[in-house]
Amino acid sequence: MATPVKVYGPPLSTAVCRVIACLLEKDVEFQLISLNMAKGDHKKPDFLKIQPFGQVPAFQDEKISLFESRAICRYVCENYPEKGNKGLFGTNPLAKASIDQWLEAEGQSFNPPSSALVFQLALAPRMNIKQDEVVIKQNEEKLAKVLDVYEKRLGESRFLAGDEFSLADLSHLPNAHYLVNATDRGEILTSRDNVGRWWGEISNRDSWKKVVDMQKQQHSP
Amino acid sequence: MATPVKVYGPPLSTAVCRVIACLLEKDVEFQLISLNMAKGDHKKPDFLKIQPFGQVPAFQDEKISLFESRAICRYVCENYPEKGNKGLFGTNPLAKASIDQWLEAEGQSFNPPSSALVFQLALAPRMNIKQDEVVIKQNEEKLAKVLDVYEKRLGESRFLAGDEFSLADLSHLPNAHYLVNATDRGEILTSRDNVGRWWGEISNRDSWKKVVDMQKQQHSP
Ligand SMILES: N[C@@H](CCC(=O)N[C@@H](CS)C(=O)NCC(=O)O)C(=O)O
Ligand SMILES: N[C@@H](CCC(=O)N[C@@H](CS)C(=O)NCC(=O)O)C(=O)O
Repeated sequence: MATPVKVYGPPLSTAVCRVIACLLEKDVEFQLISLNMAKGDHKKPDFLKIQPFGQVPAFQDEKISLFESRAICRYVCENYPEKGNKGLFGTNPLAKASIDQWLEAEGQSFNPPSSALVFQLALAPRMNIKQDEVVIKQNEEKLAKVLDVYEKRLGESRFLAGDEFSLADLSHLPNAHYLVNATDRGEILTSRDNVGRWWGEISNRDSWKKVVDMQKQQHSP
Repeated sequence: MATPVKVYGPPLSTAVCRVIACLLEKDVEFQLISLNMAKGDHKKPDFLKIQPFGQVPAFQDEKISLFESRAICRYVCENYPEKGNKGLFGTNPLAKASIDQWLEAEGQSFNPPSSALVFQLALAPRMNIKQDEVVIKQNEEKLAKVLDVYEKRLGESRFLAGDEFSLADLSHLPNAHYLVNATDRGEILTSRDNVGRWWGEISNRDSWKKVVDMQKQQHSP
Protein backbone atom coordinates (compact mmCIF):
# COMPACT_ATOMS: atom_id res chain seq x y z
CA MET A 1 0.00 0.00 0.00
CA ALA A 2 1.36 3.37 -0.98
CA THR A 3 0.13 6.07 1.42
CA PRO A 4 -0.86 5.33 5.01
CA VAL A 5 -4.53 5.93 5.85
CA LYS A 6 -5.30 8.90 8.12
CA VAL A 7 -7.11 8.84 11.45
CA TYR A 8 -8.06 12.15 13.04
CA GLY A 9 -8.42 12.34 16.81
CA PRO A 10 -6.57 11.72 20.08
CA PRO A 11 -5.93 8.11 21.17
CA LEU A 12 -7.50 8.89 24.56
CA SER A 13 -10.91 8.98 22.86
CA THR A 14 -12.71 5.64 23.02
CA ALA A 15 -14.10 5.94 19.51
CA VAL A 16 -10.66 6.80 18.10
CA CYS A 17 -9.14 3.78 19.92
CA ARG A 18 -11.71 1.49 18.37
CA VAL A 19 -10.46 2.44 14.91
CA ILE A 20 -6.77 2.29 15.89
CA ALA A 21 -7.20 -1.19 17.41
CA CYS A 22 -8.85 -2.33 14.18
CA LEU A 23 -6.08 -0.88 12.00
CA LEU A 24 -3.43 -2.58 14.17
CA GLU A 25 -5.25 -5.94 13.97
CA LYS A 26 -5.48 -5.54 10.20
CA ASP A 27 -1.87 -4.40 9.94
CA VAL A 28 -2.91 -1.38 7.88
CA GLU A 29 -0.40 1.44 8.07
CA PHE A 30 -1.90 4.66 9.42
CA GLN A 31 -1.00 8.19 10.32
CA LEU A 32 -2.61 9.63 13.44
CA ILE A 33 -3.53 13.30 13.27
CA SER A 34 -4.22 14.26 16.86
CA LEU A 35 -6.61 17.20 17.14
CA ASN A 36 -6.48 19.59 20.06
CA MET A 37 -9.99 19.11 21.35
CA ALA A 38 -9.47 21.45 24.30
CA LYS A 39 -8.95 24.19 21.71
CA GLY A 40 -12.03 23.04 19.78
CA ASP A 41 -10.21 21.80 16.67
CA HIS A 42 -13.05 19.31 16.17
CA LYS A 43 -15.59 22.10 15.74
CA LYS A 44 -13.62 24.02 13.10
CA PRO A 45 -15.01 24.29 9.52
CA ASP A 46 -12.26 22.22 7.91
CA PHE A 47 -12.83 19.33 10.29
CA LEU A 48 -16.63 19.59 10.02
CA LYS A 49 -16.23 18.92 6.30
CA ILE A 50 -15.07 15.38 7.09
CA GLN A 51 -16.97 14.87 10.38
CA PRO A 52 -20.15 16.97 10.24
CA PHE A 53 -21.12 16.15 13.85
CA GLY A 54 -17.84 17.68 15.10
CA GLN A 55 -16.71 14.48 16.81
CA VAL A 56 -13.72 12.21 16.55
CA PRO A 57 -12.65 10.01 14.81
CA ALA A 58 -12.63 10.84 11.14
CA PHE A 59 -10.86 8.63 8.62
CA GLN A 60 -9.42 9.08 5.14
CA ASP A 61 -7.74 6.85 2.61
CA GLU A 62 -7.12 7.39 -1.09
CA LYS A 63 -10.66 6.40 -1.94
CA ILE A 64 -12.96 7.76 0.75
CA SER A 65 -13.45 9.96 3.79
CA LEU A 66 -15.56 8.46 6.59
CA PHE A 67 -16.84 9.04 10.12
CA GLU A 68 -18.50 6.79 12.75
CA SER A 69 -15.98 4.44 14.35
CA ARG A 70 -17.90 1.21 13.73
CA ALA A 71 -18.55 2.07 10.08
CA ILE A 72 -14.84 2.87 9.65
CA CYS A 73 -13.91 -0.52 11.19
CA ARG A 74 -16.28 -2.37 8.85
CA TYR A 75 -14.84 -0.49 5.88
CA VAL A 76 -11.24 -1.25 6.88
CA CYS A 77 -12.04 -4.98 7.10
CA GLU A 78 -13.91 -5.00 3.78
CA ASN A 79 -11.39 -2.88 1.92
CA TYR A 80 -8.21 -4.57 3.16
CA PRO A 81 -9.34 -8.21 3.16
CA GLU A 82 -5.85 -9.59 2.57
CA LYS A 83 -4.09 -7.63 5.30
CA GLY A 84 -3.37 -8.72 8.89
CA ASN A 85 -6.10 -10.59 10.78
CA LYS A 86 -8.15 -11.92 7.86
CA GLY A 87 -10.93 -13.30 10.04
CA LEU A 88 -11.62 -10.08 11.96
CA PHE A 89 -14.94 -9.56 10.16
CA GLY A 90 -15.47 -13.23 9.31
CA THR A 91 -14.50 -15.29 6.30
CA ASN A 92 -17.99 -16.15 5.11
CA PRO A 93 -21.36 -14.34 5.01
CA LEU A 94 -22.87 -16.18 8.00
CA ALA A 95 -19.87 -15.57 10.26
CA LYS A 96 -19.96 -11.93 9.18
CA ALA A 97 -23.66 -11.60 10.01
CA SER A 98 -23.04 -13.00 13.48
CA ILE A 99 -20.13 -10.60 14.05
CA ASP A 100 -22.26 -7.71 12.82
CA GLN A 101 -25.05 -8.70 15.22
CA TRP A 102 -22.73 -8.56 18.25
CA LEU A 103 -21.08 -5.38 16.97
CA GLU A 104 -24.56 -3.83 16.92
CA ALA A 105 -25.19 -5.17 20.43
CA GLU A 106 -22.02 -3.37 21.53
CA GLY A 107 -23.10 -0.11 19.89
CA GLN A 108 -26.72 -0.29 21.03
CA SER A 109 -26.60 -2.06 24.41
CA PHE A 110 -23.07 -2.09 25.87
CA ASN A 111 -21.82 1.33 24.76
CA PRO A 112 -24.53 3.63 26.17
CA PRO A 113 -24.31 2.55 29.83
CA SER A 114 -20.57 1.88 29.78
CA SER A 115 -19.67 5.23 28.22
CA ALA A 116 -22.01 7.00 30.67
CA LEU A 117 -20.17 5.27 33.54
CA VAL A 118 -16.74 6.08 32.12
CA PHE A 119 -17.77 9.71 31.84
CA GLN A 120 -19.23 9.92 35.35
CA LEU A 121 -16.59 7.90 37.18
CA ALA A 122 -13.37 8.64 35.29
CA LEU A 123 -13.75 11.89 33.36
CA ALA A 124 -16.15 14.06 35.41
CA PRO A 125 -13.86 14.17 38.50
CA ARG A 126 -10.87 15.23 36.35
CA MET A 127 -12.96 17.91 34.66
CA ASN A 128 -14.32 19.17 38.01
CA ILE A 129 -17.85 18.17 36.99
CA LYS A 130 -20.08 16.96 39.82
CA GLN A 131 -20.88 13.23 39.59
CA ASP A 132 -24.55 12.37 39.20
CA GLU A 133 -25.32 9.46 41.57
CA VAL A 134 -28.67 8.71 39.95
CA VAL A 135 -27.12 8.45 36.49
CA ILE A 136 -24.37 6.21 37.89
CA LYS A 137 -26.85 3.86 39.55
CA GLN A 138 -29.15 3.63 36.52
CA ASN A 139 -26.30 2.86 34.17
CA GLU A 140 -24.73 0.31 36.48
CA GLU A 141 -28.05 -1.53 36.50
CA LYS A 142 -28.38 -1.33 32.72
CA LEU A 143 -24.82 -2.52 32.17
CA ALA A 144 -25.24 -5.39 34.65
CA LYS A 145 -28.24 -6.67 32.66
CA VAL A 146 -26.28 -6.52 29.41
CA LEU A 147 -23.35 -8.34 31.01
CA ASP A 148 -25.67 -11.06 32.32
CA VAL A 149 -26.52 -11.79 28.68
CA TYR A 150 -22.80 -11.75 27.78
CA GLU A 151 -21.99 -14.06 30.71
CA LYS A 152 -24.37 -16.68 29.33
CA ARG A 153 -23.18 -16.23 25.75
CA LEU A 154 -19.51 -16.43 26.73
CA GLY A 155 -20.23 -19.65 28.62
CA GLU A 156 -21.25 -21.17 25.28
CA SER A 157 -18.59 -19.72 23.00
CA ARG A 158 -15.08 -18.42 23.50
CA PHE A 159 -15.77 -15.04 21.89
CA LEU A 160 -19.01 -13.15 21.31
CA ALA A 161 -19.55 -14.14 17.69
CA GLY A 162 -17.98 -17.61 17.91
CA ASP A 163 -14.63 -19.34 18.36
CA GLU A 164 -12.51 -16.55 16.93
CA PHE A 165 -11.71 -13.05 18.14
CA SER A 166 -13.61 -10.58 15.93
CA LEU A 167 -14.56 -6.96 15.40
CA ALA A 168 -17.43 -7.56 17.83
CA ASP A 169 -15.05 -8.27 20.72
CA LEU A 170 -12.61 -5.55 19.65
CA SER A 171 -15.31 -2.91 19.72
CA HIS A 172 -15.79 -3.43 23.47
CA LEU A 173 -12.14 -2.81 24.34
CA PRO A 174 -12.06 1.01 24.66
CA ASN A 175 -14.89 1.38 27.18
CA ALA A 176 -14.12 -1.88 29.00
CA HIS A 177 -10.49 -0.74 29.40
CA TYR A 178 -11.49 2.50 31.10
CA LEU A 179 -14.09 0.74 33.28
CA VAL A 180 -11.46 -1.70 34.55
CA ASN A 181 -8.46 0.64 34.71
CA ALA A 182 -9.84 4.12 35.39
CA THR A 183 -12.86 3.53 37.65
CA ASP A 184 -13.48 1.60 40.86
CA ARG A 185 -16.27 -0.48 39.23
CA GLY A 186 -14.18 -2.79 37.07
CA GLU A 187 -15.61 -5.74 39.00
CA ILE A 188 -18.78 -5.43 36.98
CA LEU A 189 -16.71 -7.15 34.28
CA THR A 190 -14.04 -9.05 36.19
CA SER A 191 -16.31 -10.61 38.83
CA ARG A 192 -18.30 -12.48 36.17
CA ASP A 193 -16.55 -15.78 35.36
CA ASN A 194 -16.94 -15.88 31.61
CA VAL A 195 -16.92 -12.13 31.01
CA GLY A 196 -13.79 -11.87 33.16
CA ARG A 197 -12.09 -14.70 31.24
CA TRP A 198 -13.05 -13.02 27.93
CA TRP A 199 -11.87 -9.59 29.08
CA GLY A 200 -8.51 -11.08 30.11
CA GLU A 201 -8.12 -12.67 26.73
CA ILE A 202 -9.13 -9.75 24.50
CA SER A 203 -7.25 -7.10 26.51
CA ASN A 204 -4.04 -9.13 26.18
CA ARG A 205 -3.93 -8.98 22.42
CA ASP A 206 -0.84 -7.26 21.03
CA SER A 207 -2.97 -4.80 19.08
CA TRP A 208 -4.73 -3.62 22.22
CA LYS A 209 -1.52 -3.40 24.25
CA LYS A 210 -0.15 -1.07 21.58
CA VAL A 211 -3.23 1.14 21.86
CA VAL A 212 -2.74 1.36 25.63
CA ASP A 213 0.89 2.36 25.07
CA MET A 214 -0.21 5.10 22.68
CA GLN A 215 -2.65 6.38 25.32
CA LYS A 216 0.12 6.49 27.92
CA GLN A 217 2.37 8.44 25.57
CA GLN A 218 -0.37 10.98 25.04
CA HIS A 219 -0.73 11.38 28.80
CA SER A 220 2.92 12.10 29.48
CA PRO A 221 4.20 15.58 28.62
CA MET B 1 -37.04 -18.76 -2.65
CA ALA B 2 -38.67 -21.69 -0.94
CA THR B 3 -39.72 -20.78 2.62
CA PRO B 4 -40.48 -17.22 3.70
CA VAL B 5 -38.12 -15.74 6.29
CA LYS B 6 -39.52 -15.22 9.79
CA VAL B 7 -39.70 -11.96 11.73
CA TYR B 8 -40.72 -12.09 15.38
CA GLY B 9 -42.36 -9.05 16.93
CA PRO B 10 -45.33 -6.66 16.58
CA PRO B 11 -45.31 -4.13 13.69
CA LEU B 12 -45.97 -1.33 16.20
CA SER B 13 -42.38 -1.70 17.45
CA THR B 14 -39.98 0.68 15.71
CA ALA B 15 -37.18 -1.87 15.52
CA VAL B 16 -39.53 -4.48 14.02
CA CYS B 17 -40.76 -1.93 11.43
CA ARG B 18 -37.20 -1.22 10.36
CA VAL B 19 -36.78 -4.87 9.39
CA ILE B 20 -40.21 -5.12 7.74
CA ALA B 21 -39.56 -1.98 5.66
CA CYS B 22 -36.26 -3.49 4.52
CA LEU B 23 -37.86 -6.83 3.59
CA LEU B 24 -40.58 -5.02 1.61
CA GLU B 25 -37.98 -2.91 -0.25
CA LYS B 26 -36.03 -6.07 -1.02
CA ASP B 27 -39.17 -7.95 -2.00
CA VAL B 28 -38.19 -10.84 0.27
CA GLU B 29 -41.20 -12.90 1.33
CA PHE B 30 -41.65 -13.00 5.10
CA GLN B 31 -43.89 -14.38 7.78
CA LEU B 32 -44.59 -12.10 10.75
CA ILE B 33 -44.86 -13.86 14.09
CA SER B 34 -46.40 -11.28 16.38
CA LEU B 35 -45.50 -11.83 20.03
CA ASN B 36 -47.78 -10.75 22.83
CA MET B 37 -45.42 -8.41 24.62
CA ALA B 38 -48.04 -7.39 27.21
CA LYS B 39 -48.01 -11.04 28.30
CA GLY B 40 -44.19 -11.06 28.30
CA ASP B 41 -43.75 -13.46 25.37
CA HIS B 42 -40.42 -11.73 24.63
CA LYS B 43 -39.00 -12.77 28.02
CA LYS B 44 -39.86 -16.47 27.71
CA PRO B 45 -37.02 -19.02 27.46
CA ASP B 46 -37.84 -20.10 23.89
CA PHE B 47 -37.66 -16.53 22.63
CA LEU B 48 -34.52 -15.73 24.66
CA LYS B 49 -32.80 -18.51 22.71
CA ILE B 50 -33.04 -16.41 19.55
CA GLN B 51 -32.99 -12.91 21.14
CA PRO B 52 -30.98 -13.15 24.39
CA PHE B 53 -31.76 -9.53 25.40
CA GLY B 54 -35.51 -10.30 25.39
CA GLN B 55 -36.31 -7.64 22.80
CA VAL B 56 -37.93 -7.59 19.39
CA PRO B 57 -37.25 -8.17 16.54
CA ALA B 58 -35.67 -11.55 16.00
CA PHE B 59 -35.17 -12.98 12.52
CA GLN B 60 -34.74 -16.44 11.04
CA ASP B 61 -34.16 -17.84 7.58
CA GLU B 62 -32.98 -21.27 6.50
CA LYS B 63 -29.39 -20.38 7.21
CA ILE B 64 -29.28 -18.22 10.31
CA SER B 65 -31.07 -16.76 13.31
CA LEU B 66 -30.31 -13.09 14.08
CA PHE B 67 -31.22 -10.17 16.33
CA GLU B 68 -30.51 -6.40 16.21
CA SER B 69 -32.64 -4.67 13.57
CA ARG B 70 -29.78 -2.94 11.74
CA ALA B 71 -27.69 -6.11 11.58
CA ILE B 72 -30.72 -7.98 10.22
CA CYS B 73 -31.22 -5.29 7.54
CA ARG B 74 -27.57 -5.51 6.46
CA TYR B 75 -27.81 -9.29 6.29
CA VAL B 76 -31.01 -9.18 4.21
CA CYS B 77 -29.33 -6.86 1.69
CA GLU B 78 -26.16 -8.95 1.53
CA ASN B 79 -27.90 -12.29 1.38
CA TYR B 80 -30.57 -11.40 -1.16
CA PRO B 81 -28.56 -9.18 -3.54
CA GLU B 82 -30.69 -10.02 -6.58
CA LYS B 83 -34.08 -9.36 -4.99
CA GLY B 84 -36.13 -6.12 -5.07
CA ASN B 85 -34.28 -2.82 -4.59
CA LYS B 86 -30.76 -3.87 -5.57
CA GLY B 87 -29.19 -0.57 -4.57
CA LEU B 88 -30.57 -0.46 -1.03
CA PHE B 89 -27.13 -1.17 0.46
CA GLY B 90 -25.15 0.19 -2.50
CA THR B 91 -23.81 -1.48 -5.61
CA ASN B 92 -20.11 -0.91 -4.94
CA PRO B 93 -17.88 -0.90 -1.82
CA LEU B 94 -17.60 2.90 -1.55
CA ALA B 95 -21.34 3.49 -1.85
CA LYS B 96 -21.83 0.78 0.76
CA ALA B 97 -19.35 2.41 3.16
CA SER B 98 -21.17 5.73 2.85
CA ILE B 99 -24.55 4.07 3.50
CA ASP B 100 -23.08 2.24 6.48
CA GLN B 101 -21.71 5.52 7.87
CA TRP B 102 -25.14 7.17 7.79
CA LEU B 103 -26.81 4.02 9.09
CA GLU B 104 -24.44 4.24 12.08
CA ALA B 105 -25.27 7.94 12.46
CA GLU B 106 -28.94 6.93 12.66
CA GLY B 107 -28.25 4.26 15.29
CA GLN B 108 -25.82 6.37 17.34
CA SER B 109 -27.08 9.96 16.96
CA PHE B 110 -30.66 10.07 15.63
CA ASN B 111 -32.15 7.05 17.39
CA PRO B 112 -31.35 7.82 21.05
CA PRO B 113 -33.05 11.25 21.26
CA SER B 114 -35.84 10.41 18.82
CA SER B 115 -36.80 7.18 20.56
CA ALA B 116 -36.68 8.94 23.95
CA LEU B 117 -39.09 11.57 22.58
CA VAL B 118 -41.39 8.97 21.04
CA PHE B 119 -41.52 7.20 24.38
CA GLN B 120 -42.15 10.35 26.42
CA LEU B 121 -44.60 12.05 24.07
CA ALA B 122 -46.48 9.19 22.44
CA LEU B 123 -46.19 6.09 24.61
CA ALA B 124 -45.95 7.34 28.21
CA PRO B 125 -49.38 9.06 28.16
CA ARG B 126 -51.05 5.89 26.83
CA MET B 127 -49.30 3.80 29.47
CA ASN B 128 -50.25 6.26 32.25
CA ILE B 129 -46.58 7.01 32.89
CA LYS B 130 -45.82 10.58 33.96
CA GLN B 131 -43.93 12.54 31.29
CA ASP B 132 -40.50 13.81 32.30
CA GLU B 133 -40.19 17.42 31.12
CA VAL B 134 -36.42 17.51 31.68
CA VAL B 135 -35.87 14.40 29.57
CA ILE B 136 -38.13 15.84 26.85
CA LYS B 137 -36.25 19.13 26.74
CA GLN B 138 -32.78 17.52 26.73
CA ASN B 139 -33.69 15.16 23.92
CA GLU B 140 -35.35 17.86 21.83
CA GLU B 141 -32.11 19.83 22.02
CA LYS B 142 -30.02 16.79 21.11
CA LEU B 143 -32.27 15.88 18.20
CA ALA B 144 -32.29 19.48 16.92
CA LYS B 145 -28.47 19.45 16.75
CA VAL B 146 -28.48 16.17 14.83
CA LEU B 147 -31.11 17.50 12.43
CA ASP B 148 -29.06 20.64 11.82
CA VAL B 149 -26.33 18.37 10.47
CA TYR B 150 -28.90 16.49 8.37
CA GLU B 151 -30.32 19.77 7.06
CA LYS B 152 -26.92 20.74 5.69
CA ARG B 153 -26.22 17.29 4.29
CA LEU B 154 -29.64 17.05 2.61
CA GLY B 155 -29.01 20.43 1.00
CA GLU B 156 -26.05 18.84 -0.79
CA SER B 157 -27.49 15.45 -1.69
CA ARG B 158 -30.99 14.11 -2.25
CA PHE B 159 -30.65 11.30 0.28
CA LEU B 160 -28.30 10.86 3.23
CA ALA B 161 -25.76 8.63 1.54
CA GLY B 162 -26.09 10.09 -1.98
CA ASP B 163 -28.51 10.35 -4.88
CA GLU B 164 -30.35 7.12 -4.16
CA PHE B 165 -32.67 6.05 -1.36
CA SER B 166 -30.78 3.58 0.84
CA LEU B 167 -30.84 1.59 4.06
CA ALA B 168 -29.55 4.72 5.82
CA ASP B 169 -32.71 6.68 4.98
CA LEU B 170 -34.96 3.69 5.59
CA SER B 171 -33.61 3.20 9.09
CA HIS B 172 -34.96 6.62 10.13
CA LEU B 173 -38.54 5.90 9.08
CA PRO B 174 -39.91 4.18 12.21
CA ASN B 175 -39.00 6.87 14.74
CA ALA B 176 -39.55 9.77 12.31
CA HIS B 177 -43.02 8.39 11.55
CA TYR B 178 -44.05 8.40 15.21
CA LEU B 179 -42.50 11.84 15.81
CA VAL B 180 -44.52 13.32 12.94
CA ASN B 181 -47.73 11.34 13.36
CA ALA B 182 -48.04 10.51 17.06
CA THR B 183 -46.53 13.55 18.84
CA ASP B 184 -47.04 17.32 18.65
CA ARG B 185 -43.34 17.91 17.85
CA GLY B 186 -43.28 16.72 14.23
CA GLU B 187 -42.18 20.21 13.22
CA ILE B 188 -38.70 19.40 14.40
CA LEU B 189 -38.50 17.48 11.11
CA THR B 190 -41.05 19.19 8.87
CA SER B 191 -40.05 22.80 9.61
CA ARG B 192 -36.54 22.23 8.24
CA ASP B 193 -36.55 22.74 4.45
CA ASN B 194 -34.32 19.89 3.36
CA VAL B 195 -35.17 17.48 6.17
CA GLY B 196 -38.87 18.13 5.49
CA ARG B 197 -38.44 17.52 1.76
CA TRP B 198 -36.51 14.30 2.50
CA TRP B 199 -39.07 13.09 5.03
CA GLY B 200 -41.87 13.69 2.48
CA GLU B 201 -40.01 11.65 -0.07
CA ILE B 202 -38.95 8.68 2.06
CA SER B 203 -42.27 8.36 3.89
CA ASN B 204 -44.09 8.16 0.56
CA ARG B 205 -42.36 5.03 -0.61
CA ASP B 206 -44.70 2.10 -1.23
CA SER B 207 -42.73 -0.08 1.18
CA TRP B 208 -43.24 2.37 4.04
CA LYS B 209 -46.93 2.91 3.26
CA LYS B 210 -47.40 -0.85 3.58
CA VAL B 211 -45.71 -0.82 6.98
CA VAL B 212 -48.06 1.95 8.15
CA ASP B 213 -51.03 -0.13 6.94
CA MET B 214 -49.76 -3.10 8.93
CA GLN B 215 -49.50 -0.89 12.02
CA LYS B 216 -53.09 0.28 11.57
CA GLN B 217 -54.32 -3.28 11.24
CA GLN B 218 -52.62 -4.20 14.47
CA HIS B 219 -54.33 -1.27 16.18
CA SER B 220 -57.87 -2.23 15.15
CA PRO B 221 -59.51 -5.07 17.08
N1 LIG C 1 -20.70 7.37 17.35
C1 LIG C 1 -19.46 8.10 17.20
C2 LIG C 1 -19.14 8.73 18.53
C3 LIG C 1 -18.00 9.69 18.45
C4 LIG C 1 -17.80 10.40 19.79
O1 LIG C 1 -18.69 10.42 20.64
N2 LIG C 1 -16.61 10.99 19.96
C5 LIG C 1 -16.31 11.72 21.15
C6 LIG C 1 -14.99 11.28 21.73
S1 LIG C 1 -15.03 9.55 22.22
C7 LIG C 1 -16.22 13.19 20.79
O2 LIG C 1 -15.75 13.56 19.72
N3 LIG C 1 -16.69 14.09 21.68
C8 LIG C 1 -16.62 15.51 21.51
C9 LIG C 1 -17.96 16.12 21.18
O3 LIG C 1 -18.97 15.39 21.03
O4 LIG C 1 -18.01 17.35 21.07
C10 LIG C 1 -18.34 7.14 16.76
O5 LIG C 1 -18.42 5.97 17.15
O6 LIG C 1 -17.45 7.54 16.00
N1 LIG D 1 -31.18 -2.35 19.27
C1 LIG D 1 -32.33 -3.23 19.19
C2 LIG D 1 -33.44 -2.58 19.98
C3 LIG D 1 -34.61 -3.46 20.14
C4 LIG D 1 -35.67 -2.83 21.04
O1 LIG D 1 -35.37 -1.88 21.79
N2 LIG D 1 -36.90 -3.36 20.99
C5 LIG D 1 -37.95 -2.86 21.82
C6 LIG D 1 -39.18 -2.56 20.99
S1 LIG D 1 -38.88 -1.27 19.78
C7 LIG D 1 -38.30 -3.95 22.84
O2 LIG D 1 -38.26 -5.13 22.53
N3 LIG D 1 -38.63 -3.55 24.06
C8 LIG D 1 -39.01 -4.44 25.11
C9 LIG D 1 -37.97 -4.63 26.17
O3 LIG D 1 -36.86 -4.05 26.05
O4 LIG D 1 -38.25 -5.34 27.15
C10 LIG D 1 -32.72 -3.43 17.73
O5 LIG D 1 -32.51 -2.48 16.95
O6 LIG D 1 -33.19 -4.51 17.35
